[in-house]
Amino acid sequence: MTAARLIELWRGDLLESEHLGHAVVADANGIVEAWGNPGVVIFPRSSCKMVQALPLVESGAADAAGLGTEQLALACASHSGAQIHTSRVGAWLSDMGMSESDLRCGSHMPRDHDAKKHLCCSDTAPCQIHNNCSGKHAGFLTLNRHLRGGPEYVEIDHPVQRAVRDAFEEVTDEVSAGWGVDGCSAPNFACSVAGLARAMAGFANPGAGARGDAQRRLVGAMTAHPELVAGEGRACTGLMRAMGGKVAVKTGAEAVFVGIAPEQGLGFALKIVDGGTRGSEAAVTALLLHLGLLSPDAPIVRRLLTGQQTNWRGRVTGELRRAPGFPT
Amino acid sequence: MTAARLIELWRGDLLESEHLGHAVVADANGIVEAWGNPGVVIFPRSSCKMVQALPLVESGAADAAGLGTEQLALACASHSGAQIHTSRVGAWLSDMGMSESDLRCGSHMPRDHDAKKHLCCSDTAPCQIHNNCSGKHAGFLTLNRHLRGGPEYVEIDHPVQRAVRDAFEEVTDEVSAGWGVDGCSAPNFACSVAGLARAMAGFANPGAGARGDAQRRLVGAMTAHPELVAGEGRACTGLMRAMGGKVAVKTGAEAVFVGIAPEQGLGFALKIVDGGTRGSEAAVTALLLHLGLLSPDAPIVRRLLTGQQTNWRGRVTGELRRAPGFPT
Repeated sequence: MTAARLIELWRGDLLESEHLGHAVVADANGIVEAWGNPGVVIFPRSSCKMVQALPLVESGAADAAGLGTEQLALACASHSGAQIHTSRVGAWLSDMGMSESDLRCGSHMPRDHDAKKHLCCSDTAPCQIHNNCSGKHAGFLTLNRHLRGGPEYVEIDHPVQRAVRDAFEEVTDEVSAGWGVDGCSAPNFACSVAGLARAMAGFANPGAGARGDAQRRLVGAMTAHPELVAGEGRACTGLMRAMGGKVAVKTGAEAVFVGIAPEQGLGFALKIVDGGTRGSEAAVTALLLHLGLLSPDAPIVRRLLTGQQTNWRGRVTGELRRAPGFPT
Repeated sequence: MTAARLIELWRGDLLESEHLGHAVVADANGIVEAWGNPGVVIFPRSSCKMVQALPLVESGAADAAGLGTEQLALACASHSGAQIHTSRVGAWLSDMGMSESDLRCGSHMPRDHDAKKHLCCSDTAPCQIHNNCSGKHAGFLTLNRHLRGGPEYVEIDHPVQRAVRDAFEEVTDEVSAGWGVDGCSAPNFACSVAGLARAMAGFANPGAGARGDAQRRLVGAMTAHPELVAGEGRACTGLMRAMGGKVAVKTGAEAVFVGIAPEQGLGFALKIVDGGTRGSEAAVTALLLHLGLLSPDAPIVRRLLTGQQTNWRGRVTGELRRAPGFPT
């Protein structure tokens, strides 16, 4: 089975571009709906940060370090490197007696406009705390302190990453098909789109015990702090706010998006094969509308999917459309 | 016929993302090679700026205004808004007794790092001269002065755009299937990928008369001033430099790329269906290698296609690959 056409870009009366992909909705019993090929193997990238954070909570490391919901949200975040993010990650490291140099995520210019402007105009280089994954890495360091592992916590055979892989394979209910080095240097484990949706359905239907407790706490942290999971103007933050904190969504590089809806007991995962953000943000919006999780009147729906595309003079140039058959 | 798989992104040992598209190579007699569907209708966007500049030269307007090769290159450009671009477009307007307010392209932040930093750090808004299409629009204004049209030169029934449409339909040898409003507010006429490749083959095989003369001059201007057609660090500029000024290439929004190789008498056009630049830049590089126009040793080949992808710590994460069957 090949990828399905999910999102189209129209200019005037003509189709200009299109985004193909795979999407799966699952509940506690398995696949509910699917488009494209549920079995296709993908890299979840940052969309699975709540899975990568499971050992942090389940091991007791988070409680031992006294982490609150803000830190748990940051552990699941691809943040914009705004002051609200960097100040909290910096304090978290410092509370552990650690510093920026203990991170292994690398540095990149933050996405946040004010933070970027400040660095750029003062000719200051960004540091590793600006990295969108610095919260995940602070979580890895917290777990590592608990496990007493060595400093190179992103190596594939390090106890931190072995714990992540175990949790990942358990919640996806798959043996990972392989792994790659992520943008932040941590291993990223591959799974099928169905496996990722199954994992999200697990978070939406947490059981008793340490696993269920960790899933409940991580989803609760994400939905309580949407501004920490991404940032102002970002799709994850805007969509979570528009859904009133009842649904967690998370994007990953190369056009992955996942969702967790505890009230409905649903989880989903989607991947746009071309890796482009425009397609994944439009597709997740379409899927959230289809599932009744997002109001069609929410302004973000117009911004990510249904609104007209305009140019530099404000003239209408075209529009995004759901492809026939997606989602219904 | 559907789109062909052209470019793949691999991470570790697994395919992560892929770019589908259509590509056609043509000579003076028609299609030489094709991948995907040569008949699919696309918007050429900025890739057809040399076609949009034909009436400027053929009408005698360019000579009447005393335009040199720099202005002709800028008329075909999607420039970065660097000082070398904005100073020349500003002087061109001023030589005609016109100003920025006569433009109808709208304003956007320039892509050039220094120009962007200057505007950002001084809290200065960009003007229409920073628009990547300001050279094309200065060309429209030059033609318009010659044709004595009204000031709204981007309207579909304005003499400037009627002249553009006539030239476009002649060189593509097609009745345009429709038009849309481009990012710069000018009409953009649709054609098949084969029609766009045919148009480029026409530029590669210019005949006698005003049309051939204009084609020769525009290609010569582009290849003489690759830094004016795009800018430092950009694919068009880098590829033209790497080919020693013997081949003109031009990109357009939503992942279009065209090429003109006069020595070989070849033209080509390609469109990546997802509209993403990564795919079109990799695909044009692959096609130029395939046609023997670009040396595999040129550093830009590694940057756009064959080099390893690295992350923020310089670790290798994956690589782009030509999909099986593309180009050979």
